[in-house]
Amino acid sequence: LRRVRLVLEYDGTDFCGFQRQPGRRTVQGVIESLLGQLCGHPVEVTAAGRTDAGVHSRGQVLHFDTEGRIELNRLERVLNVRGGRELRVREPEETPPEFHARFGAVRRTYRYHVSAVKPPPWRARYVLWDERLGPDAAPAMEQALGWLVGENDFASFCAANSSARSTVRTLEAARVEGDPEHGLRVELTADAFLRSMVRIIMALLLEVGEGSRAPDSLRDVLLAADRGAAPKTAPAHGLVLHRVEYPDGYPAQLGAEQLDW
Amino acid sequence: LRRVRLVLEYDGTDFCGFQRQPGRRTVQGVIESLLGQLCGHPVEVTAAGRTDAGVHSRGQVLHFDTEGRIELNRLERVLNVRGGRELRVREPEETPPEFHARFGAVRRTYRYHVSAVKPPPWRARYVLWDERLGPDAAPAMEQALGWLVGENDFASFCAANSSARSTVRTLEAARVEGDPEHGLRVELTADAFLRSMVRIIMALLLEVGEGSRAPDSLRDVLLAADRGAAPKTAPAHGLVLHRVEYPDGYPAQLGAEQLDW
Repeated sequence: LRRVRLVLEYDGTDFCGFQRQPGRRTVQGVIESLLGQLCGHPVEVTAAGRTDAGVHSRGQVLHFDTEGRIELNRLERVLNVRGGRELRVREPEETPPEFHARFGAVRRTYRYHVSAVKPPPWRARYVLWDERLGPDAAPAMEQALGWLVGENDFASFCAANSSARSTVRTLEAARVEGDPEHGLRVELTADAFLRSMVRIIMALLLEVGEGSRAPDSLRDVLLAADRGAAPKTAPAHGLVLHRVEYPDGYPAQLGAEQLDW
Repeated sequence: LRRVRLVLEYDGTDFCGFQRQPGRRTVQGVIESLLGQLCGHPVEVTAAGRTDAGVHSRGQVLHFDTEGRIELNRLERVLNVRGGRELRVREPEETPPEFHARFGAVRRTYRYHVSAVKPPPWRARYVLWDERLGPDAAPAMEQALGWLVGENDFASFCAANSSARSTVRTLEAARVEGDPEHGLRVELTADAFLRSMVRIIMALLLEVGEGSRAPDSLRDVLLAADRGAAPKTAPAHGLVLHRVEYPDGYPAQLGAEQLDW
């Protein structure tokens, strides 16, 4: 049995999320079906993060086991040809069986894009258009994020249907770049995220950027440790799983020529 | 009667081309329907270029006449809200009745994107993936284009169903940027283009970039003045109508912060 890992990019717009569901088109379903044809036996993949419907990926990492002896260059090519334009596979490699895409990941980075001006058509699938964002949204959002950085109980930021045993996570870094007119990018890095955590944080940040919530109120939301203290989740399409990191340095950093997402 | 002009960006993927057709979803059909609701009377728009199915626009220009007194900021906002993420309207303004989007345009620029490596999902709707492009595709394509620049009879580069009276056009500028691995961009500027002209030129350039056609053979294709001398058109989705220019300076140049398409 060989264990293989790979990076999977996808446009989440037309998928019913990552996780396999009977009768629905999901990223996992499409990939497992292609891998099954390729390997000649049913394949089950494990992902670093099970992204929700509509969420995109630039850096999702998967692993799977196969009995076959498929060549990795061929695997990459066949997945990329048959997977269509919504998917792209990068950096497939054989890995020791100890590697685990989900439990072995030490750091995840998500990005969320929002713009006060309507984004152009070629960006609109990936950017939330929020006309209410004020001109000083960026510094106010950064101030609000300051209350969340560090090891905290993020119970207020955890979807009600989560099965997590603990709601303590470490938000290692949080920053806001750009401006509302040309597009803002919020980047969050943590050891791990709770279900819907980024989109609940974003829902609060959008209220801050719109001027209807004080930046320092994020402290109260955090201390409440109660999902009811935060508004509902922000729309999925502004969100992208940007990067997952492992102790052995996989995957390679992308070069500057790689377009940002 | 007031004449209004505007810039229209669109993702052509899910449209049956620009031109209105009964029972089909076209860019013109969608825009005329929205404008009709807004103006309270049937509206007919005239475009600088009637792009084919699957071709995108970053700089299409339209004009139309209205009896209504709709405020231009409101027109822009309503078209952008109701038009959805595939469309974006910019720079609407009232113009003298002498302005004509098609006959008044003095210069058109198209861009075509092609990559030897599979493009990432967020670029894949706009970039042709051609694995056969060789590493030296760019200089070979530039050499081939050199034969076409200037005032020429482009009959070999004109779709058979064109209704153009003359097939003489002036290709003012042609350049190739980038490299096959990170993506090539071909940019063509002319006074006007014949039907399918850019995609027929691209079909030849792709053969040149793949190494199956000599760059200098474009001279023979040009001199043949016969559509049969060139291969069929290149795929639509790599093509974008980048810019249309008028003697009065409309539309404004976009700033560098505007993402390239």
